[in-house]
Amino acid sequence: MKKRLTILGSTGSVGKQALEVIQNEPENFDVFCLSGWKNLDLLKTQIDKFKPKYVVVKDDKLAKALKNKLKNKSDCNILYGEYGLIKISTIKEIDMIVVAITGITALKPVMEAINEKKEVCLANKEIIVSAGGLLTDKAKINGTKIIPIDSEHSGLFQCIQPEYYDSVEKIIITASGGPFYNLKESALDMVSVEEALNHPNWKMGNKVTIDSATLMNKGLEVIEAYWLFNMPLTKIEILIHPQSYIHALVQYEDGSMIAQLSNHDMRIPIHFALHYPKRFKNNLARLNLAKIGQLTFKKLDSKRFPSIDLCYEAIKQGGTFPAALNAANEIAVNAFLNQGIKFKDIIKVVSMVMEKHNNKTNPNINDIINQDKETRKIAEKVCSEMK
Amino acid sequence: MKKRLTILGSTGSVGKQALEVIQNEPENFDVFCLSGWKNLDLLKTQIDKFKPKYVVVKDDKLAKALKNKLKNKSDCNILYGEYGLIKISTIKEIDMIVVAITGITALKPVMEAINEKKEVCLANKEIIVSAGGLLTDKAKINGTKIIPIDSEHSGLFQCIQPEYYDSVEKIIITASGGPFYNLKESALDMVSVEEALNHPNWKMGNKVTIDSATLMNKGLEVIEAYWLFNMPLTKIEILIHPQSYIHALVQYEDGSMIAQLSNHDMRIPIHFALHYPKRFKNNLARLNLAKIGQLTFKKLDSKRFPSIDLCYEAIKQGGTFPAALNAANEIAVNAFLNQGIKFKDIIKVVSMVMEKHNNKTNPNINDIINQDKETRKIAEKVCSEMK
Repeated sequence: MKKRLTILGSTGSVGKQALEVIQNEPENFDVFCLSGWKNLDLLKTQIDKFKPKYVVVKDDKLAKALKNKLKNKSDCNILYGEYGLIKISTIKEIDMIVVAITGITALKPVMEAINEKKEVCLANKEIIVSAGGLLTDKAKINGTKIIPIDSEHSGLFQCIQPEYYDSVEKIIITASGGPFYNLKESALDMVSVEEALNHPNWKMGNKVTIDSATLMNKGLEVIEAYWLFNMPLTKIEILIHPQSYIHALVQYEDGSMIAQLSNHDMRIPIHFALHYPKRFKNNLARLNLAKIGQLTFKKLDSKRFPSIDLCYEAIKQGGTFPAALNAANEIAVNAFLNQGIKFKDIIKVVSMVMEKHNNKTNPNINDIINQDKETRKIAEKVCSEMK
Repeated sequence: MKKRLTILGSTGSVGKQALEVIQNEPENFDVFCLSGWKNLDLLKTQIDKFKPKYVVVKDDKLAKALKNKLKNKSDCNILYGEYGLIKISTIKEIDMIVVAITGITALKPVMEAINEKKEVCLANKEIIVSAGGLLTDKAKINGTKIIPIDSEHSGLFQCIQPEYYDSVEKIIITASGGPFYNLKESALDMVSVEEALNHPNWKMGNKVTIDSATLMNKGLEVIEAYWLFNMPLTKIEILIHPQSYIHALVQYEDGSMIAQLSNHDMRIPIHFALHYPKRFKNNLARLNLAKIGQLTFKKLDSKRFPSIDLCYEAIKQGGTFPAALNAANEIAVNAFLNQGIKFKDIIKVVSMVMEKHNNKTNPNINDIINQDKETRKIAEKVCSEMK
């Protein structure tokens, strides 16, 4: 039977790759709804190709513009804004949503989707970091699954065999280390935006590339793993593995380790998530270890990259701490990209914001969304005082 | 509930390590029967410690000697020979047998054990190579499991998740390459017994160490994998991985690879097999990839080590071919160890014996046992003509 899908964020990197996977398998998937915010040209192409019944854009103006572009030839309903996102995430006809939009915007639509027992393929880091407890609790209550698309968490998802869940001794996320892992402490001060955007293993969006350079990315992934796999922090580790072919490893308490490996290709975890709980054949390039020749590993030096400890701390504190950390980091990365602050200031800003944070325990969804807004303001102030 | 066990070959390397695992978990295991062939001193120690109800030795004479040693203080029944092995493999009280004896001697006891629906933890290579079809068919009919103890096959067993069995694209066994993998072709002629026994990664018995140097070991493991996992030969590959920390990998047809890793410690796969289908905590040293630093890989050069192709050929031919290959190899390795033939002659002997082999298709258990005997005579003749 075909899976009917909603893709939130079909014009972004992950969204486009999801559609690439889907277009090869019309017998398996039916794209029922798309959301694409601003890029109307690409949206139109996608509508022509996939013939979704609903498409969501940012606002009323863009909705009208898209309607004009389609010249009433399509029977596609154009909606906009948060209402639109919630509508297409909860609509009766769909089985699964692919969450490929970034930021806290995704939180309400995903919560509502889970309420309607939709399966969730999740590429969005921010909502699981900020509201992981709310999301995973709701998924549990509704008996539905959150299937991670992030390669590390997809790897963990594949290595943790449900029957051996209680025998997991630790889970290990690998980290390339980013472009600066071997740089001297003093040289970190001088890092330019261009250097920070030059990731050794792959091209990604700017925000996540900077997070990869500060290693905040890995810290956030620890928080994600904490929620997605319901593991105590003491069982979650990071291992430096510059080639990034092993995405994750699970140490079982009987001495065996199970690892997931693949090429650097987001379509692999996307394909896995879309087909879960089955595995389906694809023609994506296979990993060739003989050709690669070697894989290397190093202990994480978390002292040099304090982002990691900040993330562990945010989870230990709980409440709105992770949401504040995430928001502060977004603002600080933005300030760095716009040359408002230095590279090493990114984590300083996050740390300062966290020190000032008034924690709220057991936050509900609105608490988290409000916290996000509020922390952004505080972080912007901290950044501007640093200039 | 405790598992009641029979250990065939408790005085050998794998048998001793199995008892080491078991002695730490008296709450989980009860050693009901042992077999130990000749080493009466060690057997007596094991009887005093584990208090088995039955012990099997090689012959009547040794049985009497052991009884004298025990001075009638023990209520342990002493049996001998094939009858004894079959008796303790099939006895009503036991749940599982651990097959840690080498050679075709194990075949009848294991077949009978499977007939009685006992679970089988299998460290013996020879019977699965020679009679894999008979064993796996019988296990299927009786709804029981053969759980491999060999680290590569234990790795595969852990990586092939039953729900994804049909999605396996290929299974990969790693090979250290043995001590001579990087030696020049001409130098292989001059290899001494001492050099061949000097395995780079671990100490094993002499026969398997020589098999590791000729790579026959890996060829035999391909045959084992063929039967144990019911995979066509086209789906079975060997990858050179000198450090031998990754024991096996499974390439799924969706682009993901799942691997099993652990330290070089046979107690890990033994512990896994004994506890299957559960995983239990142990205190064996964990693999520390950061400390190891690197893993390397190379394509197998099967032209230099023709043992591999012989094994693929034996399986393609089927019938009594694998049994003949296995028997010829045992004789040839023996001849090399006793300095009767050169290192490179080992595979020459096997190849010559296989060329002469009159295949019998659909062999039964007696056909295989007879073939084993007959081929040994032929192989001995070939060896003696080579001197």
